[in-house]
Amino acid sequence: MAASPGRLLGTAVIGAGMAGRAHAAGYRVAPTLFGAGLPVVRLVAIADVNAGFAADAARRYGFERAESDWKAVATAPDVDVVSVVVANPLHREIVEGLLDAGKHVLCEKPMAPTVADAEAMVAAAQASVREAAVGFSFRRSPAISAIREQVRGGAIGRPLAFEGHYWCDYGVDPARPMSWRYQGRPGSGALADIGSHTVDVAEFVCGPIVAVRGAVLSTVVTERPVPVGTAMGHAAVEVSDVREPVTNDDQVAFTATFASGATGTFSASRVAFGHPNTLAFTVLGERGAATFDLNRPGEFGVADDTAPDATPGYRQVLVRPGHPYVSGGFAMDFPAMGHGQNDFFGLQARAFLEQVAGIEGLPRCASFAEGLHNLRLLDAVVASAHAGGAEVAVTPL
Amino acid sequence: MAASPGRLLGTAVIGAGMAGRAHAAGYRVAPTLFGAGLPVVRLVAIADVNAGFAADAARRYGFERAESDWKAVATAPDVDVVSVVVANPLHREIVEGLLDAGKHVLCEKPMAPTVADAEAMVAAAQASVREAAVGFSFRRSPAISAIREQVRGGAIGRPLAFEGHYWCDYGVDPARPMSWRYQGRPGSGALADIGSHTVDVAEFVCGPIVAVRGAVLSTVVTERPVPVGTAMGHAAVEVSDVREPVTNDDQVAFTATFASGATGTFSASRVAFGHPNTLAFTVLGERGAATFDLNRPGEFGVADDTAPDATPGYRQVLVRPGHPYVSGGFAMDFPAMGHGQNDFFGLQARAFLEQVAGIEGLPRCASFAEGLHNLRLLDAVVASAHAGGAEVAVTPL
Amino acid sequence: MAASPGRLLGTAVIGAGMAGRAHAAGYRVAPTLFGAGLPVVRLVAIADVNAGFAADAARRYGFERAESDWKAVATAPDVDVVSVVVANPLHREIVEGLLDAGKHVLCEKPMAPTVADAEAMVAAAQASVREAAVGFSFRRSPAISAIREQVRGGAIGRPLAFEGHYWCDYGVDPARPMSWRYQGRPGSGALADIGSHTVDVAEFVCGPIVAVRGAVLSTVVTERPVPVGTAMGHAAVEVSDVREPVTNDDQVAFTATFASGATGTFSASRVAFGHPNTLAFTVLGERGAATFDLNRPGEFGVADDTAPDATPGYRQVLVRPGHPYVSGGFAMDFPAMGHGQNDFFGLQARAFLEQVAGIEGLPRCASFAEGLHNLRLLDAVVASAHAGGAEVAVTPL
Amino acid sequence: MAASPGRLLGTAVIGAGMAGRAHAAGYRVAPTLFGAGLPVVRLVAIADVNAGFAADAARRYGFERAESDWKAVATAPDVDVVSVVVANPLHREIVEGLLDAGKHVLCEKPMAPTVADAEAMVAAAQASVREAAVGFSFRRSPAISAIREQVRGGAIGRPLAFEGHYWCDYGVDPARPMSWRYQGRPGSGALADIGSHTVDVAEFVCGPIVAVRGAVLSTVVTERPVPVGTAMGHAAVEVSDVREPVTNDDQVAFTATFASGATGTFSASRVAFGHPNTLAFTVLGERGAATFDLNRPGEFGVADDTAPDATPGYRQVLVRPGHPYVSGGFAMDFPAMGHGQNDFFGLQARAFLEQVAGIEGLPRCASFAEGLHNLRLLDAVVASAHAGGAEVAVTPL
Repeated sequence: MAASPGRLLGTAVIGAGMAGRAHAAGYRVAPTLFGAGLPVVRLVAIADVNAGFAADAARRYGFERAESDWKAVATAPDVDVVSVVVANPLHREIVEGLLDAGKHVLCEKPMAPTVADAEAMVAAAQASVREAAVGFSFRRSPAISAIREQVRGGAIGRPLAFEGHYWCDYGVDPARPMSWRYQGRPGSGALADIGSHTVDVAEFVCGPIVAVRGAVLSTVVTERPVPVGTAMGHAAVEVSDVREPVTNDDQVAFTATFASGATGTFSASRVAFGHPNTLAFTVLGERGAATFDLNRPGEFGVADDTAPDATPGYRQVLVRPGHPYVSGGFAMDFPAMGHGQNDFFGLQARAFLEQVAGIEGLPRCASFAEGLHNLRLLDAVVASAHAGGAEVAVTPL
Repeated sequence: MAASPGRLLGTAVIGAGMAGRAHAAGYRVAPTLFGAGLPVVRLVAIADVNAGFAADAARRYGFERAESDWKAVATAPDVDVVSVVVANPLHREIVEGLLDAGKHVLCEKPMAPTVADAEAMVAAAQASVREAAVGFSFRRSPAISAIREQVRGGAIGRPLAFEGHYWCDYGVDPARPMSWRYQGRPGSGALADIGSHTVDVAEFVCGPIVAVRGAVLSTVVTERPVPVGTAMGHAAVEVSDVREPVTNDDQVAFTATFASGATGTFSASRVAFGHPNTLAFTVLGERGAATFDLNRPGEFGVADDTAPDATPGYRQVLVRPGHPYVSGGFAMDFPAMGHGQNDFFGLQARAFLEQVAGIEGLPRCASFAEGLHNLRLLDAVVASAHAGGAEVAVTPL
Repeated sequence: MAASPGRLLGTAVIGAGMAGRAHAAGYRVAPTLFGAGLPVVRLVAIADVNAGFAADAARRYGFERAESDWKAVATAPDVDVVSVVVANPLHREIVEGLLDAGKHVLCEKPMAPTVADAEAMVAAAQASVREAAVGFSFRRSPAISAIREQVRGGAIGRPLAFEGHYWCDYGVDPARPMSWRYQGRPGSGALADIGSHTVDVAEFVCGPIVAVRGAVLSTVVTERPVPVGTAMGHAAVEVSDVREPVTNDDQVAFTATFASGATGTFSASRVAFGHPNTLAFTVLGERGAATFDLNRPGEFGVADDTAPDATPGYRQVLVRPGHPYVSGGFAMDFPAMGHGQNDFFGLQARAFLEQVAGIEGLPRCASFAEGLHNLRLLDAVVASAHAGGAEVAVTPL
Repeated sequence: MAASPGRLLGTAVIGAGMAGRAHAAGYRVAPTLFGAGLPVVRLVAIADVNAGFAADAARRYGFERAESDWKAVATAPDVDVVSVVVANPLHREIVEGLLDAGKHVLCEKPMAPTVADAEAMVAAAQASVREAAVGFSFRRSPAISAIREQVRGGAIGRPLAFEGHYWCDYGVDPARPMSWRYQGRPGSGALADIGSHTVDVAEFVCGPIVAVRGAVLSTVVTERPVPVGTAMGHAAVEVSDVREPVTNDDQVAFTATFASGATGTFSASRVAFGHPNTLAFTVLGERGAATFDLNRPGEFGVADDTAPDATPGYRQVLVRPGHPYVSGGFAMDFPAMGHGQNDFFGLQARAFLEQVAGIEGLPRCASFAEGLHNLRLLDAVVASAHAGGAEVAVTPL
């Protein structure tokens, strides 16, 4: 059931960390993207167990109030739409509570710590009349979306190979403090945190992955100092002399087979020196190729058979009108250069609000079923690792 | 006189074209950048002679009302701060009117069509107790600002040479319609429109230019079809069969001498195929070098003497905390990748609001005196062209 | 037994195809690299079953005579050193014959079509007093060698991850004719032809690979037209209407574990649109990273902890003196820009002649034992593919 | 008068410095490029006042003898073709002597220290029946030549603007010793040494320059230590405590007008930190653009109107068959990646030998008249600098 056009959409964010702030800013900017069409968006509440974080974020992004308990959001009659942007293990309880309370829910990825949790969440969403979506924000990258259009439109022919990696350096310094990110079962580390994005992007561009092989999970920094106080995001904090073991994966590598027959090669690392945040991929097709690097989010590369014989080569394509999200999507259209990940969140918020309001416009957000599929794919990677690299089939969506 | 902390700052934008929308979005986002500190910002009015444009922009960015006459803004008691983002020939009258009416004024660049106009505007600003500034938005580029810090901090030694170009393609298609941009005296074309940015950036990074030489102005597309109806920004519109002559410069090139002794080489073009919006420069210093390209706004290059002997080279530096504007400046800090020109306008709006409110924080906007200096520099370029390339001194700031 | 200094070294090349010509040119240029030191090099013979090819190559590179039978080289008393640059299935017989005849042998990679053949060749080499080496020409890349020095010297810390791919497009056009390259058992295609280089480079830089996993071999272009006449290299030739099946791999992907604990991700393709010849890799280490792309052979990237906090990033390092092979290695040293794969062959020929002559200088060529190890590694990849991606250990060198 | 086919061509090089060695290596490799066709090339003599240099180079490149006096080359009956690769002030005497003695002469650029000298040399060449050419080696760059073909063939439309710079760092270190390069009249420094290449490349690609403007010459490092002993090329040598003034230009910048109406912007520096050897340019045309950077000699960029509307952009074109010099020009054709400046000299030697032998094949070398034109152009730059930047016409070729 969509919101009636004309009524207010009250928005809230649970979790006031870095990604939570991105969601808050997203709801604030959403109505200004693409002009009219949305119901009026109210910025109602930001909740965080750290009341100070919640208050700061609410003040900064102009939300009406701050809460320290997510249940206050669930029970608020003036809240319709809620982003859940807290530590992964907390997703299920909060999402189920929100759906029970009749809220539309945009849940950060990965959707849940386990497939079982995600299955329960899918069931909860199916039992609800509200919208439930997972925040795969890279689907809102204009460049990645443009590559998808190229591939889906046949410009490069059938995909044959996909090489993707997501390399971050947030864990490369062994002196960085322990956090919930570094503890959990194998696969709950780099694979869940960033590898999840890469496989989603791979499927977004090239269609479903049907099997994975050859997974290798490894932990490079085997223990970390316990922090003093509360960390937010990846920020540095004071640490104690106590050290605790890192129990999940710093790195992962695997291969994959797509339904199209294409072969995939994937790696993810949170200890990748020199790579603050590099999601990059190349897709090779029968008649062309395309490439993306998050370090340069406003462009992508395409090689195809349109070039003269004497001057073939990858074109450096600057994101421009005609590409997804660009025309009307920013205050200054192209040729205003550049955009970034923060913009992805505004576009995602807009898309979810349109979805809630029943408006045709931007592509819909990933469904809970897609979020579950993503987790099953990650589980298959872990299973392959446990099985010495043997192939593990991925349950179709 | 600064606004008292605690009171409201009513903002307005005159001109609802592409850049006007960027200013409007800028005022909307300004309070969310860097958290608390600003007085409450009210989004009051957007004015445009095209009432529909004004209404659309007001609705989109959440301004309370739309006006079709700038004087309605000047006389509005609830407006304190006004951006003037209209065709250059209209700047003087509106700016003087706003200052007379006691408004703080942020005027787009170039400040005025003539030095005489700009001198009058400087006088008007001096006679006013309000803030008057010119919107050189590239000064808000984190990467350009970081290069400035490198240069000013001595990391590359004394600047020896600066090569800068601003190449755009908005005029490359001869079928693109005539507009006010293409008519005026020599120097009012590419030089004023985009060359003005390059010289401001050059001085922002390397200090004052004291003389220019060797200017060559040229018109490549000598006539253009007259449009039917009103164009906004660089958008395509229907054209008639009537053609009118282009009377100003499509291209310009010149050399320059900086007070530091450095030599500059500059070019600008609005007919640069393949370059939607390329402001790029390299500064060579005694002990290092730095480079920037707007096509990749989130990074810059630096070479200096810190590299090991075996592995020297330009570093691809991703804009990150420690660089200007980054920490706290976006919803998601680094390592969230990417930002763009729209972000420059939010930072500029924030800076001007801080300036109006008397708050220490971001660097101040360029003053009217700086805007006048910029015009004098452009005038010197034109004078050099008229004098067969002979050197023309630039009046110091 | 090394050649006595002062005596002549008679050189010959068996195989006058593209790579054979590179060897021939290599022997010609070898004495001019790094000045004095080598015995006088005589350019004696080029042999090819295609007598015309042999004659052309001999004339072009100044060899004294052409032969149509490799045995004429084996029995020639004025030949000391022979490169074997023929189709892989012919390597063993020729190499064994040459060693029997007392020649020093430089055999192209991959060393043989099967591990059994290679083992026999290792035995033959051990039974001989002559030098026997395998031509892994990428070990002569100054940039790859410089990265090796960085890694081995500790500049980037212990290697943690290696991503390498070798993408070529020689098979991307299904109209390209059938050749021996496209027929053979799985693994004899892209894996043997180009994947062999990537794993050798990986081990050259990061040390031994101990196991592979997750291999996926695939054939994309399943049949090709039979050519009319003889093809040389990858050149286009006339084709007939008859089509034959492609029986080996167009693509391969796999993961690997290094003795150091590092994880590897590999892919190879001979149907990679847009990639004429892209051997590229990145190695991530504990304190740095390095990257190479054959499209730009004269440079490499390094990120490490020497950069100032404010300006970290990958450095674009131009190959220069201090890097392997550069000082004295070319007629014009750095700052003469650029070199290419042809230069690798000159350096390789020089190295092998030094080795034969017992002169200390360039690094030695890969031994037959290393060539065998490379084949065992490729066999492990194939075994992993046959075993559904399960891990297969690699016999240590 | 061309050499009769079938007879021997005896070659010699006067000057055994870095560029002299490149010429020597060029004559050695020339016959192997493009297969048959040339008369047999004898490598006869290398001459240098430093007898050791001459002997080393002769031994290294296989020349029959070394001389310490250029006159021994002029009078040698077995020498037909001579490269003159000595300090610029010595060119005239030697070239005139060689032409008098009936030799074909390939003279390094810049052709002479003064226009008057060059005029005399042109007269001497006209009075001779031998070939006389100037070694503008960048005309042998496959990538630059391919860009020329694109431009001349109309692929990018009429050229509108050319931005070119040649930045070197050989003088950036003030501790580098004094040499003849640093002393002479203004314009004999960076302008003559490297700026001469840039303007030749500009005219090679875009046609004649008719006027220059706005020249600024500057000396950055005003004195240098006197070396102990003899320097070769840019190599570091021991220096004394004595310092001498640098009397010519470290840097130059100017603008230019082409006969086509295009505008040029030029800079050259020998004190450009981070730029060992960067000749780079971009040409903007009515319907396209092209770009080159010597740091990556094996590729060039092209943007034109062949790209689909959705994916325009500069293509990274790897030099390949169909581009000048590639097919048959190297031992391994494309897809063998990479080549460099040393290869330019081999191609240049081949071209000059073809020219001497009256063989159609590669483009002819630049004539003495072209070398004189180049000097007149440089003189115009100097004259513009002396005239405060005023325009100075360039005498047409």
